[in-house]
Amino acid sequence: MPARYVYLGPEGTFAEQALRTLPQARRAQLDPAASVPEALDAVRSGEAEAALVPLENSIGGAEGVTLDEIAGGSPLVITREVVLPVNFVLAARVRPRGQSVQAPPVLDEIRTVAAHPNAARQCRGWLRDNLHGATVVEVLSNGAAAVAAADGSYDAAICAPIGATRNKLSVLAEQIADRKDSLTRFALVARPGPPPAPTGDDVTSLAVYISADRVGALLTVLTELAVRGVNMTRIESRPTGERLGRYVFFLDCTGHVAQVRMGEALEGLYRVCAEVKFLGSYPRASHPGEPAAPAARAPEGTGDADFAESAAWLARLRDGVA
Amino acid sequence: MPARYVYLGPEGTFAEQALRTLPQARRAQLDPAASVPEALDAVRSGEAEAALVPLENSIGGAEGVTLDEIAGGSPLVITREVVLPVNFVLAARVRPRGQSVQAPPVLDEIRTVAAHPNAARQCRGWLRDNLHGATVVEVLSNGAAAVAAADGSYDAAICAPIGATRNKLSVLAEQIADRKDSLTRFALVARPGPPPAPTGDDVTSLAVYISADRVGALLTVLTELAVRGVNMTRIESRPTGERLGRYVFFLDCTGHVAQVRMGEALEGLYRVCAEVKFLGSYPRASHPGEPAAPAARAPEGTGDADFAESAAWLARLRDGVA
Amino acid sequence: MPARYVYLGPEGTFAEQALRTLPQARRAQLDPAASVPEALDAVRSGEAEAALVPLENSIGGAEGVTLDEIAGGSPLVITREVVLPVNFVLAARVRPRGQSVQAPPVLDEIRTVAAHPNAARQCRGWLRDNLHGATVVEVLSNGAAAVAAADGSYDAAICAPIGATRNKLSVLAEQIADRKDSLTRFALVARPGPPPAPTGDDVTSLAVYISADRVGALLTVLTELAVRGVNMTRIESRPTGERLGRYVFFLDCTGHVAQVRMGEALEGLYRVCAEVKFLGSYPRASHPGEPAAPAARAPEGTGDADFAESAAWLARLRDGVA
Amino acid sequence: MPARYVYLGPEGTFAEQALRTLPQARRAQLDPAASVPEALDAVRSGEAEAALVPLENSIGGAEGVTLDEIAGGSPLVITREVVLPVNFVLAARVRPRGQSVQAPPVLDEIRTVAAHPNAARQCRGWLRDNLHGATVVEVLSNGAAAVAAADGSYDAAICAPIGATRNKLSVLAEQIADRKDSLTRFALVARPGPPPAPTGDDVTSLAVYISADRVGALLTVLTELAVRGVNMTRIESRPTGERLGRYVFFLDCTGHVAQVRMGEALEGLYRVCAEVKFLGSYPRASHPGEPAAPAARAPEGTGDADFAESAAWLARLRDGVA
Repeated sequence: MPARYVYLGPEGTFAEQALRTLPQARRAQLDPAASVPEALDAVRSGEAEAALVPLENSIGGAEGVTLDEIAGGSPLVITREVVLPVNFVLAARVRPRGQSVQAPPVLDEIRTVAAHPNAARQCRGWLRDNLHGATVVEVLSNGAAAVAAADGSYDAAICAPIGATRNKLSVLAEQIADRKDSLTRFALVARPGPPPAPTGDDVTSLAVYISADRVGALLTVLTELAVRGVNMTRIESRPTGERLGRYVFFLDCTGHVAQVRMGEALEGLYRVCAEVKFLGSYPRASHPGEPAAPAARAPEGTGDADFAESAAWLARLRDGVA
Repeated sequence: MPARYVYLGPEGTFAEQALRTLPQARRAQLDPAASVPEALDAVRSGEAEAALVPLENSIGGAEGVTLDEIAGGSPLVITREVVLPVNFVLAARVRPRGQSVQAPPVLDEIRTVAAHPNAARQCRGWLRDNLHGATVVEVLSNGAAAVAAADGSYDAAICAPIGATRNKLSVLAEQIADRKDSLTRFALVARPGPPPAPTGDDVTSLAVYISADRVGALLTVLTELAVRGVNMTRIESRPTGERLGRYVFFLDCTGHVAQVRMGEALEGLYRVCAEVKFLGSYPRASHPGEPAAPAARAPEGTGDADFAESAAWLARLRDGVA
Repeated sequence: MPARYVYLGPEGTFAEQALRTLPQARRAQLDPAASVPEALDAVRSGEAEAALVPLENSIGGAEGVTLDEIAGGSPLVITREVVLPVNFVLAARVRPRGQSVQAPPVLDEIRTVAAHPNAARQCRGWLRDNLHGATVVEVLSNGAAAVAAADGSYDAAICAPIGATRNKLSVLAEQIADRKDSLTRFALVARPGPPPAPTGDDVTSLAVYISADRVGALLTVLTELAVRGVNMTRIESRPTGERLGRYVFFLDCTGHVAQVRMGEALEGLYRVCAEVKFLGSYPRASHPGEPAAPAARAPEGTGDADFAESAAWLARLRDGVA
Repeated sequence: MPARYVYLGPEGTFAEQALRTLPQARRAQLDPAASVPEALDAVRSGEAEAALVPLENSIGGAEGVTLDEIAGGSPLVITREVVLPVNFVLAARVRPRGQSVQAPPVLDEIRTVAAHPNAARQCRGWLRDNLHGATVVEVLSNGAAAVAAADGSYDAAICAPIGATRNKLSVLAEQIADRKDSLTRFALVARPGPPPAPTGDDVTSLAVYISADRVGALLTVLTELAVRGVNMTRIESRPTGERLGRYVFFLDCTGHVAQVRMGEALEGLYRVCAEVKFLGSYPRASHPGEPAAPAARAPEGTGDADFAESAAWLARLRDGVA
């Protein structure tokens, strides 16, 4: 029996497209889930091996639901991330034209376009320039937009390439988002287990709970990281209703739990925070189409060789060998 | 001619309800805007005095669109915040029953419920316990849900109280969200001008841009605040596409730009950050229904009296009076 | 052959008195050295097991020479500290009086007092009140003062109790220093070897070299300590002529090199400093006569139990056991 | 009546030599004081305008007495510093030789050398190489050594050049210290008054008292400085007997009390420390013979222009001009 993976549905969304880029998805059974909570519940209950859910979008920001749901129930960890360029297409049904010819409509014939509000917003400029007279009808997902174009409810859809393929739509225009470099980041979430081996370029995700009742509490957290040369690439504060006066911060850091540097930093956080939830160490995904950002400079003295050297020195001190 | 205010529409959403709590809205013309960008554009162009838009929700988190749109174009500032308890109601049309009696349906009669996906998620428990057999149909806003119940498309709607009133719906159940303490925070956004006078309990909002290419850059930012005893109550990191390797952090801090403490901290941020956008100083809204969180303790020596005393001491030193 | 220990001479100084408080000195040969450099050279060359030299005085401050000489040549470590109350006495020769009676002079008969300048300064108030007419003659050490009183050069001496005993002087007045709580701290310095076992209340001494060419370099050093909850009880900056733009800081910290906390902090210092010289971990001396200072509170989360717990948690994370 | 200045005597020491380098000393009456306390008492009582006393020596370190005495009584401030190369000379009396010729001894004839212990230590190498057979007799000051050579008590003296001149000694060898770059730093200490005008390269000296009962108290102090880009060039911790559990740190910082940057930092220290004593802002002395140390880099964003710009920005914010 093949492993079963779920993803945030419906079929034909970017989440399915992201899941299909993973080697482990090739021989597995892939099923859509109606929502992020449903997807994660399937993992928690053991019905699925793992779930592919959106973490953040370079335009829309963090997916608050995903963060809350990962951190909120029984432990889950991220084992892979997938970063997908948000390639919106305009797709339409191929219709009978004249006697035997089937062809998609030309742009001038399109009066109505189904789109998720986020998609519509991201393609605002293109729509204004190319479909000026058309009405945009907002629907609940990119997948639903494709379905609505396929069943004839609307003339066209803004959707993911996989949504067009899946619904046998013809792609009238590609890359129609106003910002070409927009990305969505997805996480493959599983039940806890030994983390994937370090690759040399890994991410560690954490949910860090701190008491809100003193100035500088977050400063203490960041100091624990900086002192060990651990770079933080992302932070989101979110309210937590569990107890009054508590905040949770979602952090992404550069490095792997197996590293000395990261281990020391995690221990430090554990000591100074109300609670730390480890959300996984996993390989950093290459960002297709994105020019590489300049890597964060490790402060002098916090390279891996520095850590090895300092440990050797300490061992000599303890042995009394000067 | 009355002042004109816009809010994130459609009519009957929580945004309209929030705007109507403000004194300045009483004699003003209030118009819905189709989206946050449209609402802010109306302010930027001078068509509206100010716009009421959602900033964050205690369940769903930050409204990324709002943050981006405030920080993104010509300068805008927040002049008021409104915090509204998210009181979801189940509402239905009053229909003819028998000869002359009009009455709303009882719960058992409801087969379909229109709801925005976030609303449906927040009321999941209540729906399971009270409307087990009903189908939830997702629509694009709480206002749209109310309209769809009013025109008979669905049997009932999950919506804001104002959505029920506006559409002459009967409220079948109140406070149906699973978490009763859920809140939405809105901002009244205007063109730059002298900030409202300090009240003693104010918020200052900032967008802080930092170079991402060194470990601990955010630490530097937080140190500037902590050293002046400025408490940070919220932080969101968001990617910025303007230039590579740059992050923007949205910060909410306790205090007012007119205070010495906050002035020093802002100057410090200005010096160490790539860019700082001031998004306003405004009175902290009371949080109805929320038990007060313990106030952040100012570190010893950072009270207002401490600041006054230290300034007097410095003046004596400079005069050579020991 | 008994072990040989040296101390800062001449005989009869506080250094000899301090050395004699140590158990290991009981069966050893104890020899004065003419200077701190000579004392330490005797250890470096192997002629002596260890040397007892002054580290600091609660009135006069650090003994710069000792610090420089310990840090300056081939490695040496402190293995014990001794803290001695500075009990200055006024002592005089017992002289023949009348036929067969021998008696010390009474205060009124004293015209000249030999004293080391530091001793004279510390007893200024007592001398003014009790020996108003007497002339204080400055000599080069407390031991030399006692010798000069014994050989009749002067009428009396300000010296250590052991100086009086050694020179068969009669003590005319005890505790004559103006501050009764004054202390001198001595170090027993040896060639490197395994440090004494932790006692639960230990001191670790360090010489830390940092580049002087950036603001906040020392801040980095102190952060490495504070993050691990390591308390610093003493700091001295001293110029170093070895290379331009380098400072050396002598630090005393609470804790032992064998502790996890201290080990992490030392490794951190090793990584961020130009050089770190470990000057020993040794039991904190009880301070006779000194009321206990309030112990430094370890910041929350940096107790020993916290360290143990955090290490256990990290081990579970690495094993994938949530 | 000319102004009266005192210096740490006796006549012919480096302190007198240092005082004579100051313009204000030219037409003034210069008198030796027997000790640092006496010198400062003369200033406190109004008997002298100012006192020239040693602050630190690049070999021997801080003059603890001076620091304690400046900080200890009624307020005093440093108005000038003088840095003097420690140019030890070997000097001897010119004696009758043969009938009419008077000549100093040659090195071979010298059997006894008077020297202060610190001087003897600093010239150890030269003495070993050039006066191998001679006996060094320790005396209480460099000035006393010169006097003892002049009166024939010993064959030669190690002293300051001014000590040779004053006692009509002939200089047999110059620059005999083993380290040629050794310096002594003196302070001109006066009663409080408006500080000298900023020169662009000034020093500000402070005595900072902190509670010793928490880890990282000094870290707080240094953070106040670093955040304002204030560089600390020297630190000494000294015990204070006034109250238990209190330390005093003597700090030298780069900058002037009249600067915004320094003013902010001082105010910050005032707020977080138990007590701050301002010991003066005064021009940095050029260090003759010392190769310039690389200047401390101000952290990015803390230059004077940055401070001016940030103040202008804040003023615009407060006026509501974006």
